Amino acid sequence: MRVADLSKRIVANLENSSWIRKLFDEGNRLKKEFGEDQVFDFSLGNPVVEPPKSFTEALREEVKKGGHGYIPNQGLVEAREKVAEFISSRFSGNFSSKHIVMTVGAGGALNVALRSILNEGEEVIVLAPYFAEYKAYIENNGGKVVSCPLTEKFEIDIEAVKKAITPKTKGLILNTPHNPTGTALTQENVNELGELLKSCEKENSQSIYVLFDEPYSQLIYDEELADPFKAYHNIILASSFSKDLGIAGERLGYLVLDSNTPDVDLLTAAFVYCNRTLGFVNAPVLMQRAIASMDNLKVDASDYKKRRDLIVDILQEAGFDFMMPKGGFFVFPKSPIEDEVAFCQHAAEKYKILVVPSSGFGVKGYFRLSFSVSLDQIERSREAFIALYKDFA
Amino acid sequence: MRVADLSKRIVANLENSSWIRKLFDEGNRLKKEFGEDQVFDFSLGNPVVEPPKSFTEALREEVKKGGHGYIPNQGLVEAREKVAEFISSRFSGNFSSKHIVMTVGAGGALNVALRSILNEGEEVIVLAPYFAEYKAYIENNGGKVVSCPLTEKFEIDIEAVKKAITPKTKGLILNTPHNPTGTALTQENVNELGELLKSCEKENSQSIYVLFDEPYSQLIYDEELADPFKAYHNIILASSFSKDLGIAGERLGYLVLDSNTPDVDLLTAAFVYCNRTLGFVNAPVLMQRAIASMDNLKVDASDYKKRRDLIVDILQEAGFDFMMPKGGFFVFPKSPIEDEVAFCQHAAEKYKILVVPSSGFGVKGYFRLSFSVSLDQIERSREAFIALYKDFA
Repeated sequence: MRVADLSKRIVANLENSSWIRKLFDEGNRLKKEFGEDQVFDFSLGNPVVEPPKSFTEALREEVKKGGHGYIPNQGLVEAREKVAEFISSRFSGNFSSKHIVMTVGAGGALNVALRSILNEGEEVIVLAPYFAEYKAYIENNGGKVVSCPLTEKFEIDIEAVKKAITPKTKGLILNTPHNPTGTALTQENVNELGELLKSCEKENSQSIYVLFDEPYSQLIYDEELADPFKAYHNIILASSFSKDLGIAGERLGYLVLDSNTPDVDLLTAAFVYCNRTLGFVNAPVLMQRAIASMDNLKVDASDYKKRRDLIVDILQEAGFDFMMPKGGFFVFPKSPIEDEVAFCQHAAEKYKILVVPSSGFGVKGYFRLSFSVSLDQIERSREAFIALYKDFA
Repeated sequence: MRVADLSKRIVANLENSSWIRKLFDEGNRLKKEFGEDQVFDFSLGNPVVEPPKSFTEALREEVKKGGHGYIPNQGLVEAREKVAEFISSRFSGNFSSKHIVMTVGAGGALNVALRSILNEGEEVIVLAPYFAEYKAYIENNGGKVVSCPLTEKFEIDIEAVKKAITPKTKGLILNTPHNPTGTALTQENVNELGELLKSCEKENSQSIYVLFDEPYSQLIYDEELADPFKAYHNIILASSFSKDLGIAGERLGYLVLDSNTPDVDLLTAAFVYCNRTLGFVNAPVLMQRAIASMDNLKVDASDYKKRRDLIVDILQEAGFDFMMPKGGFFVFPKSPIEDEVAFCQHAAEKYKILVVPSSGFGVKGYFRLSFSVSLDQIERSREAFIALYKDFA
């Protein structure tokens, strides 16, 4: 019998990603054998807090009204106005509907932005550890990934970025609050990056875009989020409502241009063209209508803060070494042994604790833990984490 | 001031597509000046018939239940089972949930399928006239577009396809009922294509995939839809519920593999990987839940048939030369003058009739008319079409 003749690159990528799948398969096997509640699954970043009432009420009203059908590919004006108001309340700039393009999630947003700016072979800097899909997103659109390490404290290493920049650098992806580490950048650190990029732009007569990926920015706990628009001009913000409104899987994302961009029309025309021709077409209409009829889009992060405080307490009691999570729902402790894949396998096999080894995020020696699970599951995992750490002490 | 430094290819494409935008701008200007109801807008393929009651009821129930959150990227099992049942009732094969991948619309589906099969430079045959976005979809994924004309009656020209096939041919896009012509292929014609492709596969030891794009297949009027699964083995069906359920813009699409495909797991793994890494991630969850809880997915095409019959009556009375539309909601008359762009401009300026010149679909000398508008608008346009034709008689 014939065997499928597929893209060689895709088949190679499938093979490379298979060890992560093995871990997930192992998790499913454990859940089947011992029961869901006997497994401590911290592997997935799936929002656990229910959407705010104002969202579910708006959604119900919109379903009653009906009115499906194609809309402008850029997005409903009312939805873009709501997003513009929301962004204006949080970042410096005077954003209006013309600065916004509604997209199919933040993943769709990043692909649309990269396709719009990249010529074949141009470079995009990612700061390691980084969200694993960035690599695929950049390569999808003809770009070359340049990985540049964050410091030990997961801050931007300005000297390292300086060395990574070449005349072919077209963009840098900035992600704060950060997946996988849960840390957040300071305004000072972001300002330093802005100064560096401005001087490189001038020196090489090139344009460097900062793709500011901020799907966790409303889930911030102790301090203010840094504002990249204060630090730099060429910002393209990409985000979604998956995390803060708790509607992951509904694919409601958006792109925002700096409100001082002189060529807004050309840039949004490029975004809209790529949104359409990459096959995304438009962000799901019903979800756009729902947010358009909400009073405001602000959410309460306190449910996540409780989880953050609890997991931090447990990891500290057990003895793990990690940076305090400032936002989002991840924490990124050091693996007690060098080989973090072996550590994660041990955690799964002996304690039914499922966490993700850091290799998938471009660095070695750590593991990622999502605390977007029930408080009960976190508390019940305490003894297992303590015992797990002792195995390597 | 700086000007955006964008992808050169995207900027070039923006310039090429600008004349279509000019037509739309002209339409908007006309509507503003004379009022919506004084303009006969037949330019857009936007479904006008409301979704069936069973869909809106299912959607309301699902919104009440809540339950957002990430799901398997392949799609909810219940939604895939429903689609498998639906496909099994219409095409030959014994489809189950494992043959289905839920996607972000049919546009997302085609991009995912093309990314999964194409190596750089491999060729995909499109049959002209063709849906304009095919070109972008193929080029997005490293493929080369090979345009091959349909016959005068818009049937597959087997000899022409034979000549177009090379050892680099990796796929052919088959679209019936057809956008832009509204015609439908016969089973005999599709069988001939299947025989040709099978012999080419054998001769050159190559795999040729047929991407069967069928978003209009439930809107069929006088006869049965041809079944490509009867004619050929390497079929990848791409479709969406935008047209038949009247939910355009909600982005609920799917891919279906031939139920005899020997390597289903590898192919669906590739589709799921591309769905995720291209940034689509998953089809919107709420819409998947809605179709999963419907009794069946069959719809009544009679509202569109009424519109088809009325527009055909008017075009015949006016004197236009066209093939009878068999499905979907388009008709594709010959332009009475060679330069169809000039004809369309004349129709817009003098009669406020908005139709799309055929150049965008890869052929010259025709125009596309969408009858997915109100019966009232169609009837009111009668005198304008009669006068328009007379100007060139």
